Amino acid sequence: MKIYWYRLRDRLESLRANKIFETFVIAVIIISALLIGAKTYDESTRFEQVMVWLDLGITLFFLFELIIRIAAEKRTLDFFKKGWNIFDFVIVTASLIPIDDSEMVLIARLLRIFRVLRLISMIPELRILLTALLKSIPRMGYVALLMFIIFYIYAAVGSFLFESVDEKLWGNISLAMLTLFQVATFESWATAVLYPTMEHYPYSWIYFLTFIFLNAFIFLNMMIGIVLDVMQKESAAEQLESGEGEIAEIHWMREHMQSMSEQLERIEVQLREQRKP
Amino acid sequence: MKIYWYRLRDRLESLRANKIFETFVIAVIIISALLIGAKTYDESTRFEQVMVWLDLGITLFFLFELIIRIAAEKRTLDFFKKGWNIFDFVIVTASLIPIDDSEMVLIARLLRIFRVLRLISMIPELRILLTALLKSIPRMGYVALLMFIIFYIYAAVGSFLFESVDEKLWGNISLAMLTLFQVATFESWATAVLYPTMEHYPYSWIYFLTFIFLNAFIFLNMMIGIVLDVMQKESAAEQLESGEGEIAEIHWMREHMQSMSEQLERIEVQLREQRKP
Amino acid sequence: MKIYWYRLRDRLESLRANKIFETFVIAVIIISALLIGAKTYDESTRFEQVMVWLDLGITLFFLFELIIRIAAEKRTLDFFKKGWNIFDFVIVTASLIPIDDSEMVLIARLLRIFRVLRLISMIPELRILLTALLKSIPRMGYVALLMFIIFYIYAAVGSFLFESVDEKLWGNISLAMLTLFQVATFESWATAVLYPTMEHYPYSWIYFLTFIFLNAFIFLNMMIGIVLDVMQKESAAEQLESGEGEIAEIHWMREHMQSMSEQLERIEVQLREQRKP
Amino acid sequence: MKIYWYRLRDRLESLRANKIFETFVIAVIIISALLIGAKTYDESTRFEQVMVWLDLGITLFFLFELIIRIAAEKRTLDFFKKGWNIFDFVIVTASLIPIDDSEMVLIARLLRIFRVLRLISMIPELRILLTALLKSIPRMGYVALLMFIIFYIYAAVGSFLFESVDEKLWGNISLAMLTLFQVATFESWATAVLYPTMEHYPYSWIYFLTFIFLNAFIFLNMMIGIVLDVMQKESAAEQLESGEGEIAEIHWMREHMQSMSEQLERIEVQLREQRKP
Repeated sequence: MKIYWYRLRDRLESLRANKIFETFVIAVIIISALLIGAKTYDESTRFEQVMVWLDLGITLFFLFELIIRIAAEKRTLDFFKKGWNIFDFVIVTASLIPIDDSEMVLIARLLRIFRVLRLISMIPELRILLTALLKSIPRMGYVALLMFIIFYIYAAVGSFLFESVDEKLWGNISLAMLTLFQVATFESWATAVLYPTMEHYPYSWIYFLTFIFLNAFIFLNMMIGIVLDVMQKESAAEQLESGEGEIAEIHWMREHMQSMSEQLERIEVQLREQRKP
Repeated sequence: MKIYWYRLRDRLESLRANKIFETFVIAVIIISALLIGAKTYDESTRFEQVMVWLDLGITLFFLFELIIRIAAEKRTLDFFKKGWNIFDFVIVTASLIPIDDSEMVLIARLLRIFRVLRLISMIPELRILLTALLKSIPRMGYVALLMFIIFYIYAAVGSFLFESVDEKLWGNISLAMLTLFQVATFESWATAVLYPTMEHYPYSWIYFLTFIFLNAFIFLNMMIGIVLDVMQKESAAEQLESGEGEIAEIHWMREHMQSMSEQLERIEVQLREQRKP
Repeated sequence: MKIYWYRLRDRLESLRANKIFETFVIAVIIISALLIGAKTYDESTRFEQVMVWLDLGITLFFLFELIIRIAAEKRTLDFFKKGWNIFDFVIVTASLIPIDDSEMVLIARLLRIFRVLRLISMIPELRILLTALLKSIPRMGYVALLMFIIFYIYAAVGSFLFESVDEKLWGNISLAMLTLFQVATFESWATAVLYPTMEHYPYSWIYFLTFIFLNAFIFLNMMIGIVLDVMQKESAAEQLESGEGEIAEIHWMREHMQSMSEQLERIEVQLREQRKP
Repeated sequence: MKIYWYRLRDRLESLRANKIFETFVIAVIIISALLIGAKTYDESTRFEQVMVWLDLGITLFFLFELIIRIAAEKRTLDFFKKGWNIFDFVIVTASLIPIDDSEMVLIARLLRIFRVLRLISMIPELRILLTALLKSIPRMGYVALLMFIIFYIYAAVGSFLFESVDEKLWGNISLAMLTLFQVATFESWATAVLYPTMEHYPYSWIYFLTFIFLNAFIFLNMMIGIVLDVMQKESAAEQLESGEGEIAEIHWMREHMQSMSEQLERIEVQLREQRKP
């Protein structure tokens, strides 16, 4: 009995790693994405029955693929050690829950949309990109906090001063922060926000200009800095690994110089000893 | 008497450096910030009495914390040697001044908002970020001056030429500079500024396009340059301190090569002396 | 017979490489471009006959130049090995097809416009720029795919949730993607897209702000990274070729150190042998 | 006679180089700039007489300063060898021409505005900034040419296809280029340009999106590249000059290694000769 099981597992494992099977899974994900897109067109109601069948087929295929991947694992629980596997598991099992309630349809639809994210878990290059992105998040945290503090202070000042000018823009601190975000993206900041405010407070341009300068200054200064920093470190790590490029050469020289220095020491000692006798 | 005082000071010092106490101070600052935010909502009038008490509590706690920090210092005046301490002192003491006059309410409110900035003085990572930012300001000074000169000249030309087109946009040099800043942020620059002007002066696009190109060119060229420069120097300084990375390795080699060169010299001399006899 | 042909080919080859001839070809391309521009003015109908003759002249000159370049090649088929040559061939021959159908006039006009691209094939500096650009495309492919996935998911969610708000902006997934692209460029994103949506869904700002942050984050992080990476590698390759600059110096040291190290080994061996007898 | 002249010249030279005199000249330039700004206000008519006198005073002072600088030169013609001196000379002498014609008033005003540029010629830091900027212009030339070709082709296509949609935006190739520049700056590109066009040509989004992507791609890719390149070379040159920083250290090692290598050679030769006898 157990031997049959082992053989099956080996076959499943080779199936999972099979290039054609992988391409087929990617194709199904793309079809699933196109299906979601097609549903947003009004004409799609004509093909409703086809779509329901296609949707069921995709759901079942994803279930089948998930079972294969779990079964191919030597220890079943190892499957859940990778973040992407848990993500796949949640997406696939959640779409199996039968939905009758009309209010739940929205959630079911959203779940089907998130299936598109499985593309990232299937294509290794995208996975690498994403992990590289996630690495730079912690460093951005404090910059984001600093910018949030600036937004908060300006929003508080703005909603105290300009509430009478435009209730919709400056009514409370949340609205004021949204207005300031609009100003930060330069969207109608002058025509819709600055000029109406200046009619009541002629000196309010100081408020807006300092805000824009502070924002642009911090954003430019820090974001570029962080990105450069991360990239430099990554390219250095890459060069040291491959052994090519100037950083790798410097590293090689640094290590080699030590041995040369020791060699020189030995030569000096030998010469000194030669003289003694 | 004095021994009691010393013991108390040591206790205060350990309290000030205590992680839990620090977290509590940060929590109070955040509550103070939320309180300011809550006040901007109209519904907040229902809880007015609670807010007055909370505000008083926060003010007193900040006073209490300030006294602890001053008392924990070995020499009281040392406290005022750090810029952040002076900032904290001004913010805390200023909010103690009793305000009756209704016109002063605004200033009192603004003072309470600036309390949020105490977050920066409490969180070391934010303090480091800010000092790094402040370092790049002097270098930006001359770039800012150059851009101001360009703005001033274009604003003068603009208010001479286009005053008749739109009094609100080009009425005097200040309005013209504000309009040019709007153009520089690309906000409705074509629909609201360029096209109305072109109806009277068909060749005014030369004025706007040269202005945009000059601005973009100087901004891109210099800001990126300065940011890169500052970042490179900082990363070099960091590497030299930690002794890791290619710049540190180069520095090590540079110093080591000197001693190797001297060693070689000694070897040469020894060999020459060996031959003589 | 053959000798005459060889002589002619050599002459054609020297003509093709002649600086004055090249400048003349560039001049004709520019005249062709100006002619296209002139046609877009309504007043141009007065000079219609002149333009028809000029157009014919340019077409014939381009044909003449193409024949020279093909004839100057030692093997006629070698001409078609370069991408730019094929491009030139298609543009020139396609404009020879006589057009009677009024519907085809548009295509003929477009073909004449693409002649301007021949400037790139004629000026070597532009050709270098373009090949450098094309090099960075494959690396950008996966970033573009990742951004497309994010756009697609947000567009699907948007067209499910906001279809009732504005049929024109969120009617189907294509319209939603276009709207999101408008949001990504910050064009009227708040006044025309966010605020109307917030009137129906007060929490829709979460949707828009996460979208903007995700976009800005990925774009900044990756594009700058890729550009820097490509540029660094190019400048390193350039330095190694010219033998100047710090990267070339590092490379020289790296290779030289090996020989120095071997020299030291030899010295040590000699000293050891000296001692033996 | 001549000795008096020499003495006077020496005094003028020391006056020109005097820090207080330089500061005074800068102050007069700033006053001149403020005067121009003040004239743009309507209330300025009240102080008209004062302004005429001030203007005359400034003009005479600039003439006086110019004469000092020319007289301080050992050879008068050496003065005209520097670009900035010629600029100063033209600005100062041109404002001496008496103007009666009311049409010439505009030119006289513009000349007075350009006096502000004398700030750049007076402050050395600004002069350095400007020369650094000018250095990066030639490299940007070909990128600008490539972008112009793309603009021209898209403008030609646009004015052929969309002329019927909006005569004001696509009437001829110049208007089309201006519209495309507006699109490139993202100003109302969707609401005012894309959507009206899409009502007639539903697939016109291809035209606009390819244009935006091409533009963004080339701009990002090349500008950043060029800026980085120029900055890297400048910082390298700076480091080599000052002898500090990693690039200077690499250069030092590179030169030093040669001598070490020669030393090793000498040692080897000595050892070989030692063995012979």
